[in-house]
Amino acid sequence: MNALGVVSRRLCAGVAGRVSGWSAHSLRPFAGITVSQIDEEVAKLLELKAQLGGDEGKHQFTLKTAKGTRDYNPKQMAIREKVFNTIIGCFKRHGAETIDTPVFELKETLTGKYGEDSKLIYDLKDQGGELLSLRYDLTVPFARYLAMNKISNIKRYHIAKVYRRDNPAMTRGRYREFYQCVNDRRILDGMFAVCGVPDDKFRTICSTVDKLDKMSWEDVRSEMVKEKGLSEEAADQIGQYVSMQGGKDLAERLLQDAKMSQSKQACAGLTDMKLLFSYLELFQVTDKVVFDLSLARGLDYYTGVIYEAILTQNGPAPEAGEKGEEGVSVGSVAGGGRYDGLVGMFDPKGRKVPCVGVSIGIERVFSILEQKAEASAEKVRTTETQVMVASAQKNLLEERLKLTAELWNAGIKAEVMYKKNPKLLSQLQHCEDSGIPLVAILGEQELKDGVVKLRDVHSREEADVLRAELVEEIKKRIADV
Amino acid sequence: MNALGVVSRRLCAGVAGRVSGWSAHSLRPFAGITVSQIDEEVAKLLELKAQLGGDEGKHQFTLKTAKGTRDYNPKQMAIREKVFNTIIGCFKRHGAETIDTPVFELKETLTGKYGEDSKLIYDLKDQGGELLSLRYDLTVPFARYLAMNKISNIKRYHIAKVYRRDNPAMTRGRYREFYQCVNDRRILDGMFAVCGVPDDKFRTICSTVDKLDKMSWEDVRSEMVKEKGLSEEAADQIGQYVSMQGGKDLAERLLQDAKMSQSKQACAGLTDMKLLFSYLELFQVTDKVVFDLSLARGLDYYTGVIYEAILTQNGPAPEAGEKGEEGVSVGSVAGGGRYDGLVGMFDPKGRKVPCVGVSIGIERVFSILEQKAEASAEKVRTTETQVMVASAQKNLLEERLKLTAELWNAGIKAEVMYKKNPKLLSQLQHCEDSGIPLVAILGEQELKDGVVKLRDVHSREEADVLRAELVEEIKKRIADV
Repeated sequence: MNALGVVSRRLCAGVAGRVSGWSAHSLRPFAGITVSQIDEEVAKLLELKAQLGGDEGKHQFTLKTAKGTRDYNPKQMAIREKVFNTIIGCFKRHGAETIDTPVFELKETLTGKYGEDSKLIYDLKDQGGELLSLRYDLTVPFARYLAMNKISNIKRYHIAKVYRRDNPAMTRGRYREFYQCVNDRRILDGMFAVCGVPDDKFRTICSTVDKLDKMSWEDVRSEMVKEKGLSEEAADQIGQYVSMQGGKDLAERLLQDAKMSQSKQACAGLTDMKLLFSYLELFQVTDKVVFDLSLARGLDYYTGVIYEAILTQNGPAPEAGEKGEEGVSVGSVAGGGRYDGLVGMFDPKGRKVPCVGVSIGIERVFSILEQKAEASAEKVRTTETQVMVASAQKNLLEERLKLTAELWNAGIKAEVMYKKNPKLLSQLQHCEDSGIPLVAILGEQELKDGVVKLRDVHSREEADVLRAELVEEIKKRIADV
Repeated sequence: MNALGVVSRRLCAGVAGRVSGWSAHSLRPFAGITVSQIDEEVAKLLELKAQLGGDEGKHQFTLKTAKGTRDYNPKQMAIREKVFNTIIGCFKRHGAETIDTPVFELKETLTGKYGEDSKLIYDLKDQGGELLSLRYDLTVPFARYLAMNKISNIKRYHIAKVYRRDNPAMTRGRYREFYQCVNDRRILDGMFAVCGVPDDKFRTICSTVDKLDKMSWEDVRSEMVKEKGLSEEAADQIGQYVSMQGGKDLAERLLQDAKMSQSKQACAGLTDMKLLFSYLELFQVTDKVVFDLSLARGLDYYTGVIYEAILTQNGPAPEAGEKGEEGVSVGSVAGGGRYDGLVGMFDPKGRKVPCVGVSIGIERVFSILEQKAEASAEKVRTTETQVMVASAQKNLLEERLKLTAELWNAGIKAEVMYKKNPKLLSQLQHCEDSGIPLVAILGEQELKDGVVKLRDVHSREEADVLRAELVEEIKKRIADV
């Protein structure tokens, strides 16, 4: 595959850039060295580092999570659970199955799949045995899974964390709507061909086009011409195309375009784009989707349609270049495309399994909902406790525990304070704080009468309920809420 | 803490062993080198290795998951989801909140927490920046989280994968019941003290006692005396205690025991054990819990009560040493204990936060249920699809897609075949295979009449339903199932 050839070359170029920063002095001892010798030297150096005590005696312990990672507290988890449930609900509505794969893969499974991004892969330390890396996305492990299990037909979803040695700047802001951009790798490649981009510059010009969401056309053009050595004519022709946005009509027009129609690839992409829009019409979502010739997703494994879901602050899809109050694009929350060649890279006989997929940037969606929750007065519950078993009097710990066990056994979500003699006020305060709607209050009198005082936390109303009827009464009250 | 002192010494010994393998020649060029110089040298070597092309031409690709890891297919995931839902339901019933932490931690966060097991930690490669390790359990990250956020009061559950460089042999077999063993680190330590075990042998003798579930007392005794240098008298005294099993009564008896009562530690543990059993009585679970003096969990951070849940093949808790058909112990599925010192290790001022917890070995529970599902005739559904939109006639793809979109928008879980003209039989077969209960069949006549033929896959009964009433009818049918 041509694309991959280019990729590995770029990887080398990237490395070469850093290599040139070395001093001649440091490089000299390594002349003629082999990989296993390097491994040995590295191991020795790292042992030495371990002996030296890691960070040069800086032994003050740092209480933090690893750079680029975060904990989720219960409130954040409650929001995350809600987001997941919404998304999983959607997948299930469409008849999807789910799978899971390990957090790390053999290093060679990931090698040569991500182009320039490969440098962002987390490798595990060589502790003897296999060379492993943390998964960089869920797509390559999925392709490995399909090839390994000889599966050619599955609709799967997979929710899991992926790992990238990156400094992701979390865009903040309030987002309300999102729309999707669509393009096709074949339309892009065809466009590059008819505009006169040399074959071996496709990928690098493509990654410059990909910056159009952050850079002006002038800057993109300048990078193409000055940094990447593209002719001015080719750049200007690309400029005419990448400003185009539309729907089925645009695909039809480009099929008639004197230049575009010369590329077989572009025509195949445009014909599929027309078909896609006819399906979007059936699903009544054409107002949410834009065919955008400037969309050029980074990853190397895409072979056909590519798309991105972009949140806009307000209202509908923005016009090209528009950055006003309405419809400001604030970032991609999902992206994907067709990757018909990836599974074949794992299959010993190279059998192809066509695939198409989408990846949702859950962290960004989550961060938006978290801000919304912070801004809202509504309390986020972190437990689902339905009833608090409390007492106003001393020495009733055992009775409280007994009633709590009764409720648990009846499937009711119940809590009890662990203290021997908590104050009633602090028990009620806990209900207020954590949103528990009911309190079952025990006292000497209630125990004698065989009743429990059931209190509604919100209305503060209390009623004596027969102990034998308590479970039913709680279930009834909960159902009413 | 004495226990931890031992641990860090052992860790150092491990490194020293490897250091001694270096040749003097290789070490010489590094004399006087600093850590940042090492980092620099390592980076250069690794760049060079990347340039050389990694593994020196060994390019045969292996299609597999990393050793000790596995994929989960949709059927396995369906079972896993059921297990999770049961467990999460239990946590929620008891008012627990959930948190999440990153899959890797700073290496120093994990250092000195696991004793001998530290060698099983997966380290990430030093790619510049922080030294990281994959989490080995969820307890140490939890303690780090508590210290970092100054939390002293939380009831949390956390479901996530942990990573150990181990060769876990998955015990196979059919399990029906499980019971729990309880002990207390203070009772163990007190017992060791009164039996004459020298202070510095506590941990190593403890780990030998821990093997009593797999080895006979004779073998355990022999290891203590011959390998660990314990006196025969001390070993025999230990032998008398570790064969004891019971409940509250045993705790009471040991509090009166001439030898045991000499240990303040043991008495504190026994008094707490009595209290624990009085709570277990309130919760009516004393038939499921055994106070077992031979229980000695490996991890170093426990400070008080320790316990394990052990699956037995059949019926109640086994008598000590019994290995018959009834009540055969087939392995631990959960374990935990009190760790009052761990959070303090992270707190700059050493403030202690008492903690007690349990870890469930979900993989083992899952493997049991998977075998059960395999043995049973019942089909495991991997999707939740409620209705298949089908057609008996050609050229109705668009109509099928339109109806499917209608159902999706109404919140109904629906599937449609992607083929242009699938055979009705293959559409029905798909429903049989994947357990979809209903089929909505479209034909020219139905379209003309404004109806849909709704078929019950199980009974094969069909009825025409007005298109406008289809959603309601499907919801009614689903609710009835």
